[in-house]
Amino acid sequence: MPTIDAKRLLADLRHLRSIGAQGIGVVRPAFSAKDMEARRWLKARFEEAGLEAAIDGVGNVLGRSKKPGKALLVGSHSDTQPTGGWLDGALGVIYALEVARTLAGDKASANLPVDVVSFQDEESRFVGCLGSRSLIGELTAEMEEGAVDKDGVRMQDAVRAAGLADAPRFKVSRDRYAGFIEAHIEQGPTLEDTGNRLGVVTGIVGLRGIRFEFRGQQNHAGTTMMKTRRDASTALYELAHRINTEFPKAAAERTVWTMGRLRVEPNATSIVPGYADLDLQFRDASEEPLKRFEKIVEQIVADMNARGGVRIEATPARAPIPPTRMDEGLRAHIERAAEKHAPGKWLRLPSGAFHDAGIISAALPAAMLFIPSIGGISHDFAEDSRDDDIVLGCQVLADAVASALQAGV
Amino acid sequence: MPTIDAKRLLADLRHLRSIGAQGIGVVRPAFSAKDMEARRWLKARFEEAGLEAAIDGVGNVLGRSKKPGKALLVGSHSDTQPTGGWLDGALGVIYALEVARTLAGDKASANLPVDVVSFQDEESRFVGCLGSRSLIGELTAEMEEGAVDKDGVRMQDAVRAAGLADAPRFKVSRDRYAGFIEAHIEQGPTLEDTGNRLGVVTGIVGLRGIRFEFRGQQNHAGTTMMKTRRDASTALYELAHRINTEFPKAAAERTVWTMGRLRVEPNATSIVPGYADLDLQFRDASEEPLKRFEKIVEQIVADMNARGGVRIEATPARAPIPPTRMDEGLRAHIERAAEKHAPGKWLRLPSGAFHDAGIISAALPAAMLFIPSIGGISHDFAEDSRDDDIVLGCQVLADAVASALQAGV
Repeated sequence: MPTIDAKRLLADLRHLRSIGAQGIGVVRPAFSAKDMEARRWLKARFEEAGLEAAIDGVGNVLGRSKKPGKALLVGSHSDTQPTGGWLDGALGVIYALEVARTLAGDKASANLPVDVVSFQDEESRFVGCLGSRSLIGELTAEMEEGAVDKDGVRMQDAVRAAGLADAPRFKVSRDRYAGFIEAHIEQGPTLEDTGNRLGVVTGIVGLRGIRFEFRGQQNHAGTTMMKTRRDASTALYELAHRINTEFPKAAAERTVWTMGRLRVEPNATSIVPGYADLDLQFRDASEEPLKRFEKIVEQIVADMNARGGVRIEATPARAPIPPTRMDEGLRAHIERAAEKHAPGKWLRLPSGAFHDAGIISAALPAAMLFIPSIGGISHDFAEDSRDDDIVLGCQVLADAVASALQAGV
Repeated sequence: MPTIDAKRLLADLRHLRSIGAQGIGVVRPAFSAKDMEARRWLKARFEEAGLEAAIDGVGNVLGRSKKPGKALLVGSHSDTQPTGGWLDGALGVIYALEVARTLAGDKASANLPVDVVSFQDEESRFVGCLGSRSLIGELTAEMEEGAVDKDGVRMQDAVRAAGLADAPRFKVSRDRYAGFIEAHIEQGPTLEDTGNRLGVVTGIVGLRGIRFEFRGQQNHAGTTMMKTRRDASTALYELAHRINTEFPKAAAERTVWTMGRLRVEPNATSIVPGYADLDLQFRDASEEPLKRFEKIVEQIVADMNARGGVRIEATPARAPIPPTRMDEGLRAHIERAAEKHAPGKWLRLPSGAFHDAGIISAALPAAMLFIPSIGGISHDFAEDSRDDDIVLGCQVLADAVASALQAGV
């Protein structure tokens, strides 16, 4: 198998970091001037690597191989969080570029078609995973027309300002592609905590959200006796604590749940609250624990409403994201490469964060490779990974891409 | 016993209501133009009633009887909440005026000295119970200098604007006064719910406040496993629910507690909160349940901190208000008058809300009479009481004041 050029890989990663750098972090949200500058630079690098490159109508940068046969699509996203880290997304894009260059530079693999992609707006400035959604034909006119960022900017205006209003849009199909592989930092502590250097993603967790509303009666906190109160906050505390007590019994090993946003009205020390609301979010790599959780929530709400007093209403807080499984054929190639370069130092694990691979998996076989995040930190300027882990991950990806293409996947 | 003039009483109450009226409510916060207009009107009415009247340096209106002997001080406050009801405070002031007039107009009671007072700023625009605090010498220079309202206005500027900067300040002492009686609307539903028309206040509840701070670790809600989380909101829900579960076992009949203000940071659906805080307030007419509650809180916090994870800190949120007992001698006079005019239709009860009588009780024997609030509503434009309850309450107060003075209290 050909060997990647570690120096070239790290140099390109650092150059991409410099576009929108703020201190040790990066500020390069989708369609910003810095984001578009980065995309034009990527297009030029893709062309230097012998690919036919273009930026499409939603900002995706695609470098297409001129080699015949079914290609593998490899990449991630180059937009960042409003105050992001330097590796989230960027790592997987530069990996893909380095893999394409490496394979093209070695006679044994020079004939293998690798397409490189940088998706647009994975980080949800307008539409989360905008670029990958567009690529598989899932982006609707309604989604585009309604998309507005938190400052009130319309996506259609941002696309026009970026000069992309008339650019054609890429589509993927199984006619051209054998599959998709995305490399990414883990964004969590599991690899570091277990002493592993690589993660092979088994699936991307599904996510459900429930919003609870509690309707009671606002009253004076001195003159209203406990028996006659209908205190919205008391009901909220009970419901939340019961969820935290009962969910562990129904959880799988890596099921997570969070109640991190709430509101109590009027939120004053001396007033019995008449209204409260609370968000519950839960995630797992398979449907079963999510369904069990929904049943538990239903039971707790029914039980509390049967008692009278505060009225609790539970409604879906968002469209559910179903769990997705990564393709076993592609995973086997990644696992073999991981075992070869880091024997005993790699782990199968689900991804707790969402990724473009979760979208693409609806259209193509898809797989993911993780490298460790130092301290598990991500979505933060402090996000980082060790250079030797970065280099190792790229070599494993190169091997996996080459062997998958050689095997016809 | 002399009979009050119900028509005159209701007419004066309605006139006072017209000063600062907004719809059915009243907006007459301390030192506002409407408040000072009301105080000047009260001063004139006190003079018409044969009293020596003046407005003092903090805005108290005092009408002093010219009769010899130890007087009873009778009254309440005429300032209102920012959006207040028409009877809170005003009722007790006009009652006192009517009682002074009634006693002065009857030969059998014409020699009894009744002083009438309208205290300033009971409703805490600057300093809660400012007027009664000043009257007993409890107001310090520091309190005055630091007092600022929610819009940033300094109390000293408001006093100057009201033309009171150079006015002398009244003081009360046992040399002049045999005691103090305040009549007030109940501001709660107990009298109405139990079918009673009068309440004789046994004491004013004490109040303690505890602020809890929860320090954990902020994290990604998808990639941070439950085992490694230190979720500040989870600890808050558990602590609050345990308090709501354990307090009832240690509560007295009318103990109340409230956790109506809290904050969770960063308060986002997809982020494990790293910090939270919560206010607990509890009230009872005696010290024992308050002390038991403090002990329970201490145990829960120690228990949860011993487990590790989120660190909980509990600190006093405010200076505690000790429970105060109303004077039994004065109460006996009120109870006899209540039984005479509404046999079997009166109740002994503690006050869950705080009142000027709680301040004055530190310097003079003090007692309170309640009349029912319709629906228990107060601190709201909708606050109201039935005319026949208003008239009955004033007659009972007149009888009680006369008999207390005749008995030398």
